Amino acid sequence: MFKTIINAGQRLKGHANITPVMTSGTLNNLVGAEIYLKCENFQKIGAFKFRGAFNSISKLSDKEKLQGVIAYSSGNHAQAVALVGKMLDIHTTIVMPNNAPATKLAATKGYGATVIKYDPETESREDLALKIQEEQGLTLIPPFDHLDVIAGQGTATLELFDQAGPLDMLLTPCGGGGLLSGSAIAAKGVNLDCTVIGVEPELADDACKSFKTKTLHTVKNPATIADGTRTTSLGKITFPLVLEYVNDMVTVSEEDIIHAVQFSFFRMKLVVEPSGVLGLAALLSKRVVPKEKTGIILSGGNIDAETMAMILNS
Amino acid sequence: MFKTIINAGQRLKGHANITPVMTSGTLNNLVGAEIYLKCENFQKIGAFKFRGAFNSISKLSDKEKLQGVIAYSSGNHAQAVALVGKMLDIHTTIVMPNNAPATKLAATKGYGATVIKYDPETESREDLALKIQEEQGLTLIPPFDHLDVIAGQGTATLELFDQAGPLDMLLTPCGGGGLLSGSAIAAKGVNLDCTVIGVEPELADDACKSFKTKTLHTVKNPATIADGTRTTSLGKITFPLVLEYVNDMVTVSEEDIIHAVQFSFFRMKLVVEPSGVLGLAALLSKRVVPKEKTGIILSGGNIDAETMAMILNS
Repeated sequence: MFKTIINAGQRLKGHANITPVMTSGTLNNLVGAEIYLKCENFQKIGAFKFRGAFNSISKLSDKEKLQGVIAYSSGNHAQAVALVGKMLDIHTTIVMPNNAPATKLAATKGYGATVIKYDPETESREDLALKIQEEQGLTLIPPFDHLDVIAGQGTATLELFDQAGPLDMLLTPCGGGGLLSGSAIAAKGVNLDCTVIGVEPELADDACKSFKTKTLHTVKNPATIADGTRTTSLGKITFPLVLEYVNDMVTVSEEDIIHAVQFSFFRMKLVVEPSGVLGLAALLSKRVVPKEKTGIILSGGNIDAETMAMILNS
Repeated sequence: MFKTIINAGQRLKGHANITPVMTSGTLNNLVGAEIYLKCENFQKIGAFKFRGAFNSISKLSDKEKLQGVIAYSSGNHAQAVALVGKMLDIHTTIVMPNNAPATKLAATKGYGATVIKYDPETESREDLALKIQEEQGLTLIPPFDHLDVIAGQGTATLELFDQAGPLDMLLTPCGGGGLLSGSAIAAKGVNLDCTVIGVEPELADDACKSFKTKTLHTVKNPATIADGTRTTSLGKITFPLVLEYVNDMVTVSEEDIIHAVQFSFFRMKLVVEPSGVLGLAALLSKRVVPKEKTGIILSGGNIDAETMAMILNS
């Protein structure tokens, strides 16, 4: 599996941003370790999702590329697929809920994607996407449960180890498990002794439960502010990978998440979305004791004005 | 003068952060040039002021260091002097208005400074500082009108040229002119053909008027959101330096400033304070046409929750 991440890294060269790694004396003193923050909020479209989308789409056959791709997402994955389509001159169709924020709709359309809206109250986006996919012969790019997507997401950690040297511990957010499993495979590939920990909101702790019981749990529509982790469960592919490569899973409270967004903003001057700070939240709330050199994936920075204003005034 | 900046750069080595330079394809496409953003919001205390404070304080004699230093400021300069005092084990006294934000008071005290409060309605901070300075034999570290402070501020541009290569144009905010004159001397020292432009809020356009008329103008308590530029006028030292080294001065509106803070936040994922975005605001508002390779000093990122929430909701 590690080789697929190295290959993905080659494929992304010159297309994805090599995102900076930030450090902070204040943070190091606070937690008593050297902390390396991998800033995927500075990635194209503002989140790591670009990596998986680019890796999977660029690997398609010429025929598949000509036919076009389809994705369903209301968030960062939609924009990632749309942007990659624009870069590689591939037609993209994105299935989005009709209540998606206007800015996200506009951004997705701005990349030249055809946006198909659905009513999340009455329609299933999976069924709708499948129907369009079959009718038009499109290739579906799933948001996480796909080996090429996972390999792409893993390249952020590969880069981080290149930039910061081998790390003793890695903390990464967990939604559907694409970033977490890719990161874990990459980290273990470079340093087998690296402890990899996935972090979830308490309100969306399906992966934690699945990990601890080794049985797939689901949590429907969790009310967490970390919208990127509102996925129902780990996937058929990501669940066994998480079991195999991840050392532990922990949860953080909504207050921990809010505090970590504030810390990123006021102390680090970084705009990080709630889902993006989960690793940092685990550290700041002392739910995880860091090892000497600990890396954290700050997975994205796409946050709307309302949510940030609410967090800053909390 | 250029030599003093090179010397300051040597003095700051290992003490100041080497701040990253960010680029953005979106921004480059928008303005039709290569833009290099020097992120002094990632400097220690969140602003370039650390550079001037460190350079001037570290140059003091042993006797002066033993006696201690004093500064008056309600903003970034106060924290910079306090932090340098802590780092170099020098006692610091900071004169601050009694209505300064609690967070700034706490941060300054947190660095071990003795904070003396005054009533800005009835007392002059300059007179008070002078009185304490004389009574206690302290050395005053002025916020901008001092050659060692100016040389320190210039090191940000020196670093930027090191990182991005020689630039054709440099845009920098202007308050009291310490950053602007230091930046201009540094830029011309590396590339005599570099066009250096200072940017002010329209509401605080004293330096613009002074520059165009070659006579010192003052603007008292301007109501601009860019609080770092609310200084009354250029200084005795900075005014002639600005006249000699700066090519032009332009102003931007409050709306331009707000838009540039939003752009930094949403598109760049950077927290930049209103005074810090002035150069970017001049570019985005098309008040300045950039040259092929244009640098911008994002001078700081210290913004309170209320102001940012207001800007995000604008």
